[in-house]
This record gives sequence, structure tokens and C-alpha cells, in this order.
Amino acid sequence: MSYLDHISSPTLLIDEKITRANIKRMAEKAKKHGKELVPHWKTAQSHEIGNWAKEYGIKQITVSSIKMAAYLCGQGWENIHIAFPFNIRETSKLNELAKDQSLSVQIVNPVTAKTLASKLTNPVGFFIEIDAGYGRTGVNVSDFGTIEEIMRISKTSDKLTFKGFYLHPGHTYYMPNKDEIYDQSRKALQMLKLKYQTEFPKLATRIGDTPGCAVMDEFGDVDQLGPGNFVFFDLMQAELGSCSKEDIAVCLAVPVVDIQKERKEILVHGGGVHLAKDVLVDAQGNKNFGEVVALHENGWSILPERSYLKSISQEHGVIKASDSLINSVQIGDLLGILPIHSCMTADCMGAYLSLDGKWIDHAEGK
Amino acid sequence: MSYLDHISSPTLLIDEKITRANIKRMAEKAKKHGKELVPHWKTAQSHEIGNWAKEYGIKQITVSSIKMAAYLCGQGWENIHIAFPFNIRETSKLNELAKDQSLSVQIVNPVTAKTLASKLTNPVGFFIEIDAGYGRTGVNVSDFGTIEEIMRISKTSDKLTFKGFYLHPGHTYYMPNKDEIYDQSRKALQMLKLKYQTEFPKLATRIGDTPGCAVMDEFGDVDQLGPGNFVFFDLMQAELGSCSKEDIAVCLAVPVVDIQKERKEILVHGGGVHLAKDVLVDAQGNKNFGEVVALHENGWSILPERSYLKSISQEHGVIKASDSLINSVQIGDLLGILPIHSCMTADCMGAYLSLDGKWIDHAEGK
Repeated sequence: MSYLDHISSPTLLIDEKITRANIKRMAEKAKKHGKELVPHWKTAQSHEIGNWAKEYGIKQITVSSIKMAAYLCGQGWENIHIAFPFNIRETSKLNELAKDQSLSVQIVNPVTAKTLASKLTNPVGFFIEIDAGYGRTGVNVSDFGTIEEIMRISKTSDKLTFKGFYLHPGHTYYMPNKDEIYDQSRKALQMLKLKYQTEFPKLATRIGDTPGCAVMDEFGDVDQLGPGNFVFFDLMQAELGSCSKEDIAVCLAVPVVDIQKERKEILVHGGGVHLAKDVLVDAQGNKNFGEVVALHENGWSILPERSYLKSISQEHGVIKASDSLINSVQIGDLLGILPIHSCMTADCMGAYLSLDGKWIDHAEGK
Repeated sequence: MSYLDHISSPTLLIDEKITRANIKRMAEKAKKHGKELVPHWKTAQSHEIGNWAKEYGIKQITVSSIKMAAYLCGQGWENIHIAFPFNIRETSKLNELAKDQSLSVQIVNPVTAKTLASKLTNPVGFFIEIDAGYGRTGVNVSDFGTIEEIMRISKTSDKLTFKGFYLHPGHTYYMPNKDEIYDQSRKALQMLKLKYQTEFPKLATRIGDTPGCAVMDEFGDVDQLGPGNFVFFDLMQAELGSCSKEDIAVCLAVPVVDIQKERKEILVHGGGVHLAKDVLVDAQGNKNFGEVVALHENGWSILPERSYLKSISQEHGVIKASDSLINSVQIGDLLGILPIHSCMTADCMGAYLSLDGKWIDHAEGK
């Protein structure tokens, strides 16, 4: 029996070898540079894949919601960091989890710091998130007033401990000048470290995003690296140059339900509820919702001629097929689709099937 | 205790009154025109909301996958139609479900018809899906060869019964000339009915899409209407003119985690994993991932000045706020977000919270 025999409907496959190679490569890179790798587990959201990561020296992880933290508690992580501006409506849930698990949160304003300082019943660390140009979230890097107010408030509590500065330069995803953005981000963290390390000698700086951590080879005096997507990679990362398509570790198996030979189109069961709706648009405006790979007993392989999902709706996917694919495909076949954004696809699917036919867990619920 | 007290993290709210009014309005419209309403339940995917629908005379529903059908089996539906080109890898699952539930499927090619004709162990109906210009799926309206081959194959089986023709003119979502598209679709179905009704006197024609069924007032001799989204509506439908914003029956409650007064931006916990990534883009290229409503004890209300989600990532949402909102909002508040595409949002969230604090079911798993 091959893992393919388990599949009758859209199923997210994981290649354990590729996943392990991705984790190992990033762990070795961090080690070589003397940095600690604290991966963002919002991509994998899995106990089992966490166990693989531990074999490469990973001891701490990051998540993006308290529900994800709750799912990963009690799995032997030295610390779980919730890298999202803390939501004060979840303070009692945080207290509950912090009884048995070392946790840290992210703070970006004094209101949140005050709430935590007065309401925490168990020790929780915090990072101040810094915005050095991305503009999504974080305290502006030169807003020392806010930074110091948050630090001052935290000192009124024996439960809330300042751990350092966290920076997610998410604009490396969109900008051509990645080197420049990285340089700017590193300098921002370095400046803050120099300014505050006398007062907080243990403060750590953490920077996290896959394009940067995959491509750069100079991290300056940043202490910790926090990329997430590298565990699986995806077509967006391949386009950004973070990986090759051969490094992508997950793929959606989809059943072929119709073939339109004249239009060179293949209809598959696989749409927005499976892949999410992330899309790459080329210079001519053509949309790409995922690329076709051939599935076989031992996994999948990149096709010599490119075929891709040109459109998706809730459950339907329409593949623009190459000549060789359209001439060989049959109704009832399974094809593989490499995702545009693996974090979102994994979150949609909620489970992985390994190539030896085992189900691998993923957090459920939002 | 208000329903708001139940909420600490992103939660999908449902207003039962609005939902019932939407169902009632469409049921009355169908009745007035002498048509049967067979709603597409991929939007609600719920037992409980199905029970509401039954009160307005709804007896049959449509779904878009066999898993969704499995979830809705045994709930007293006279028939559940799986409106997706049948996936022959799921034949044994279909046989299993068809033991206890009247089901129908969609067929678009002879290969699938042959498989079902030879492998069905229980009676199953089928519609031939017709493509009259949308181009996503279905047999071309003038491809009588394929249509008749499918009919011929079905006659070799005493389990597979031809029920009629199904047409989803999904291009009404994108095209300005909805009337013309509708006219074309109706004429296509009328032609097929005239051509084949001597041979199949009971054959029914079904047309389904919310923009058409909501706006049109002339359905010709089509027998059944199959819209889905109208149960909840959403901002996409409001933009298309199918509804007003007041008719939207679901809204995502999101906690405010940071406020950037100078930029007039509010950061909320609510992103792509909650809302999906459907987006409306205006003539100036501004993106809209959802619009803000005020939440109160009895539900929500449209704000006089518009505020909207200008960007989302996996968990983050950034609201571009009006002056009045930015001056009144507090960290820790809850805001409501009307979704762009309610089917996708409901599928992401997997449950609804009613305004009296009860959880309402939604199918889980893909």
C-alpha cells in the first residue's frame, strides 16, 4: 500500500525528509553564526514536527496566537513566545497557561503593559516589538518615550519580565532591496541593545522572517533568529529566492474530476478552502494559485514542463496544463499542487499525511 | 451577560433575525415565481441553520463536496445534491452515504458516468452540469454528443437516474451585463429541456448563483433556483447590488490590540486564517478586506463613517479608521468586521456564536 491509496479527497502531503533538511540547514546556519534559532511555529503548528525540530537543537518556539500556544503547551518547549501584540481580553487564559509552561508575549503599548503588570498571577516574559519600517505593528524604533514607559510599568510587577526586542521585517517579502532592509533592521536592534543593555544586561534581540534568514549571511550582533516558513517553504519563497522548488516540503494532493483537452485545462477538487487564496501574479498579469507536481510512490517530483492553477473558487481548481500533462492525465488521477503560501494551506487543511501513510497533527480551531 | 462577554479571541457572530429574513425573502421570491428553492448549503454548512431554513419550506439542499454531504446526512433533507463534478475516487463513500440518504451528483463526462453506472450499489440521481459561457466546469451547452453519451451510459444502470441540467453562471460575479448572462443561461436550459423532455418527462433545470437570483425577476421556465450566499450575503454581494450592507448576517468580532492615532490605524487580531483573503479593490487600487461595524448588546450597526481593513496577514488585520472611530476606540475593545466573502469566512471559522450567546454548528474538516 502506498500513501496514495489513502487519498480520495484533497489531502495535504508532507515529505519528512525535505522538512528535516530545511530545519537542519537553518539550525546549522544559526549555529555557525552563533545565534539561537527560535522558529515561528505558526507554519507547522504541530507536535510531531516539533519533535523532529528538537532533534536539531531547537528548544524554544514562537506562535502567533494564544490558542496556538495552548495547543503546543506541555510538549517540552523551554519557552513558547506569542509573537502578536498581546490581546488583554486573553489575560486570564494567559495566567492559566503560564502555570505550567514558560511563556512570553509581545507588548507594543503601555495600556497592555499596565493590564499585564496588574493582572498576571504567574511569571511571563515579554519582548517589545519594534517597527523599523514595515509599518504593520510595533513601537517605532525611535519612540524611546513609549519603549521606556513600557519598561517602567513592567518594573512595577514581579511577574512581568522584560526579555528584549523583537523585530519582524515583513517588508522583505515585497521589496527588492532586502539587504538594505536587513541592514536597517539589524542597526535598529543594535542601537536599542546598546542603549538599554546596561539596565537590562540579559536583553536579547530577535529578528524573524524567512526571506531574510534564508538569504542573508551576516546577522551582526542580533542574538536570535525567528523565521517560520522555512520549515516547509512554498512558491512565494521560491519566487523570492529563499529556496528552490525542490525544497518545498508540503504539497496538496488533488483528484482530477474533468479534462478539457482543447482548452488544455484540468479541473481538480482543490480550491480556496484547501489552499487559501494566496496568489502570485506575473508581469503579464497571469495568476498562479499553485503549481502541479507528479505524485509517485516515494513522494513527488517537479515536472519538466510547467502546469499551474490558473483559477480557484471555494472547492474548484482549474489547471492550465502543459502539452505533456494534458496528454497523459486521466480522470480519477491524483496530482500534487505546490502551495503559494504553505502556512495558510496548512492552516486550512488542519492535518498532514506523511509519505508512509501516517497522519501528522496540526492545531485545530481559530 | 451579553454575547460579547463570551468573546476574547476572533469569533464569527451570526444574527439569526437577518439570516431568517434573507432565507424568507428568497423562499417567497421562488414561490411567487413557482420555482423550487434548493439553496447551496456550502455557505452555511450547518444543521441548526438548516432547521431554520426548513421553517420556510426548504426541503432539499446542495453541497459542494462529499464530506459536506456526509455532515448533512440524516438531518431530514429530502435530497442532498453534490454540485461538484463527481470525483470517482469517492465512489465507495457515495455508496455508503446513499444507503440512508437520497443523494444526487453532478456528471460532466462519460468516464465518470461509466464508473458510477458500473459501481453504484444504491440509487443516486445525477444532473448534467452545463457550461453556457462561465468556462469553469460543465459540458458545453451545444455538445450534444457528450450529453447524450452520458444519458446513454446512465440507462445501462438501474441505480443511476438522470434528474436534469444544472447551470452555475458564476460569471455574473464579474460581468456588468448580468441580465444578458441570465438570459443566455435561461435560454440554454430551456433549449435543453425542450430537446430532451420527451425522453425524460421529469427532467428539471436548476440555476444557481446569488447575484442572479437576488436581482433578477424573470426566471423563464427554469424549475429550481440554487443560490447559496444569500443566506448570509457579504460585502462582495453588496458591491454587486444583490443586497444592502444591513442584510449581511455574519460578522467577525475582533479584539483591538493596538492603536496608531497619527496614522489613523487600528491593529486587530483578525487575519487571513479567520476571514480568508478575499478582497475588494476600488478604482484607485485600494484594497478592502472587510468593513468595520459597531458591536453592541443586540448585535451590530453600520457606522456612519466608513472604516475598513486595509491589509491582513495570517493573524493581523490593520484597520484604516475614520476620525470618529480613531477618537473613540480603546485597546481591548471588540469591533465587528463584515466579511468580503462570507462562505470562505464561515469555512475558516468553523462555528458561529449567536447574539444570545449560543454556539451554532458548522461542518468541520476538508
